[in-house]
Amino acid sequence: MHHDISEYMHTVGRQAGEAARILSRTETRGKDLALLKTAAAIEDNKAHLLSENGKDMEAGEHRGLEPALLDRLELTDRRIQSMADGLRQVAALTDPVGEISDLTYRPSGIQVGRMRVPLGVVGIIYESRPNVTADAAALCLKSGNACILRGGSEAIHSNRAIAECIRRGLQQAGLPEHCVQVIETTDRAAVGELIRMEQYVDVIVPRGGKSLIERVSHEAQVPVIKHLDGICHVYIDDKADIDKALAVAFNAKTQRYGTCNTMETLLVAGPIAPSVLPQLADQYRRAGVELRGCPKTCELITDCRPATDDDWNMEYLAPILSIRIVDGLEAALDHLYKHSSAHTDAIVTEDYSRARRFLREVDSSSVMVNASTRFADGFEYGLGAEIGISTDKLHARGPVGLEGLTSLKYIVLGDGHIRE
Amino acid sequence: MHHDISEYMHTVGRQAGEAARILSRTETRGKDLALLKTAAAIEDNKAHLLSENGKDMEAGEHRGLEPALLDRLELTDRRIQSMADGLRQVAALTDPVGEISDLTYRPSGIQVGRMRVPLGVVGIIYESRPNVTADAAALCLKSGNACILRGGSEAIHSNRAIAECIRRGLQQAGLPEHCVQVIETTDRAAVGELIRMEQYVDVIVPRGGKSLIERVSHEAQVPVIKHLDGICHVYIDDKADIDKALAVAFNAKTQRYGTCNTMETLLVAGPIAPSVLPQLADQYRRAGVELRGCPKTCELITDCRPATDDDWNMEYLAPILSIRIVDGLEAALDHLYKHSSAHTDAIVTEDYSRARRFLREVDSSSVMVNASTRFADGFEYGLGAEIGISTDKLHARGPVGLEGLTSLKYIVLGDGHIRE
Repeated sequence: MHHDISEYMHTVGRQAGEAARILSRTETRGKDLALLKTAAAIEDNKAHLLSENGKDMEAGEHRGLEPALLDRLELTDRRIQSMADGLRQVAALTDPVGEISDLTYRPSGIQVGRMRVPLGVVGIIYESRPNVTADAAALCLKSGNACILRGGSEAIHSNRAIAECIRRGLQQAGLPEHCVQVIETTDRAAVGELIRMEQYVDVIVPRGGKSLIERVSHEAQVPVIKHLDGICHVYIDDKADIDKALAVAFNAKTQRYGTCNTMETLLVAGPIAPSVLPQLADQYRRAGVELRGCPKTCELITDCRPATDDDWNMEYLAPILSIRIVDGLEAALDHLYKHSSAHTDAIVTEDYSRARRFLREVDSSSVMVNASTRFADGFEYGLGAEIGISTDKLHARGPVGLEGLTSLKYIVLGDGHIRE
Repeated sequence: MHHDISEYMHTVGRQAGEAARILSRTETRGKDLALLKTAAAIEDNKAHLLSENGKDMEAGEHRGLEPALLDRLELTDRRIQSMADGLRQVAALTDPVGEISDLTYRPSGIQVGRMRVPLGVVGIIYESRPNVTADAAALCLKSGNACILRGGSEAIHSNRAIAECIRRGLQQAGLPEHCVQVIETTDRAAVGELIRMEQYVDVIVPRGGKSLIERVSHEAQVPVIKHLDGICHVYIDDKADIDKALAVAFNAKTQRYGTCNTMETLLVAGPIAPSVLPQLADQYRRAGVELRGCPKTCELITDCRPATDDDWNMEYLAPILSIRIVDGLEAALDHLYKHSSAHTDAIVTEDYSRARRFLREVDSSSVMVNASTRFADGFEYGLGAEIGISTDKLHARGPVGLEGLTSLKYIVLGDGHIRE
């Protein structure tokens, strides 16, 4: 059985490589046509998508999946429409492939520049949400990459039905069907093969829970673009404008609780703490946020549970906030150096030099001044779409859009030039 | 013993991380001062460097190292001067760290841009050439990265002596000595630790023979920027200018034999083969290049050994050239798809559309029109220096200079902006 999986995956990989070669030279309009035709196919097949999704939902309920998981798994009219809309949005984005930059003459007489090119074959491993099948396929297609999609076994019927719509879209645009391949088996060995097929796969993007991502990046031979923790901070400096501090700190925690760019720890400079914390605590309390504070925080506000050492390293993804009063910028930077997950951190200050220092010295994928951490998002940044948020340092940091699925090669133009 | 190595390497890693934090915020002039002071220390200590290198040379001869290896190991007055000059050249380069690009206003009112930042800690694993110690340290330092250098055991005395000069340079510039650490043990277990210390090391750059690079990339948990094969091609199109074809094809093979950007296979379009191959073969023969050809090539030129299937996948690094006559551009692209190592490939043609196609469709780190593959080099491209040539697709492709040792983080500037 295991041997069959290996053979199957290698076939998938080889087919992806062949499709990638054609896709890399496909003009923009061909790729856009495939996206628009897929959107239409999804709309035309709403009933079929709903009934296939119904099978997954039934099996999921039967297996006793948690309600949150079932919610992510479910397709509705609105969610199906939003998949189709997403495909049209990606079609409307500028094609990054082939863009030439920095083309300059060198002393030798040659012109040297860089051309943006697809990575080749992208492997995406994800869980439950069937819409990822359409979203990820769209981003890969537009950026000229063939993709191999490995969704969760709980969504297999939904994913197959979506894949069928994509296949139709590719076909109608005259593109090879292997540009987008959905793994047809639910055997977990398929993932093991996928992340080791260096000869066929250029990058793996795992999307899902932390344990999935850790396992994938630990075992992969193929490079991985990954998202680990989002332990995001807001530091309220003593030179902060109090209204801005209240607005940013409240929004960063409460606008949504379960997202990776939600603030998990609030740092407040000692001198300003009495002017902001009691009022903020009041707002958080009314929003139902549990507060866990350092000893000084607990003295200043009521209903505050003492924070343990673990709290400074926790991604709650829940209405819980840890609060620490620090001496000032230096202590805040030290806290971030030790506890930030390098995702998104913000300072609230009116002080020019401190803002400048914070921007330079905080080593996170997004560093903000006087803005809510919730802005760390591909759409808010203008990428048009997002395949994920990278907490890696190499290649792509922060929200990853089309550009993150490409790289730059050098091009050299000469007129018979030789090296002396 | 193995436990001690692990403890030692973790200490080195932790120290590198702490130094990196300071170095990342060090202003350009501080880094440049360290480079200039190191250059002076190297010049001042020529005699000591020569005598330490003498110990390595003696041990190497005693161990029966090959002459080529001994040559790479040897330091001379000229080589020492060239190390010092190299440090001054890196000091003169523009500092990439902190550069802000693409800062624009978004509809929400926030400004979003990107800031170039160091990767953090760079691990470099290399063989024999002691000058790499100074060159690699300089590039890492200038790009704001702490580095851990693991040279070959055969060069340990030379590397320690160079490290001492670097330490003096750092000290005179007031920078932490752990910005540059040379591994003091020759135990091979140190490499195994280095490439698995994800918590401390951000990227590994292996420099050396293919077996070293393959082992490192196979076993590494830390991301690797690597250079594998350089099987470079020149394709002479039937619309080529014959003089340019002769010049480029001759230079690409013969200007140097042992470099990765040397042409290993020449592809010639059938219709033009009779006009270029006999003359080229004559030139190659006079230069002492052994020719191995496809059947058609062997018909056309004398003294040509039949090429085997292996020849199309060989990096000779020697005065040997394989030659294949192909039908035209399409067949050349097919050959490249199967046999190119994605390093550097060139077309010689006067045809605009074919040049345009070749540039777009050849998936190599450098793609050239009417220029010798020997130009694929950091200095020729204007990078000012080069830590290596990457054949990877992620992060950095082709010659890697300072920019390849940095990445881009997002910065967001607001005025109390919150997400609705």
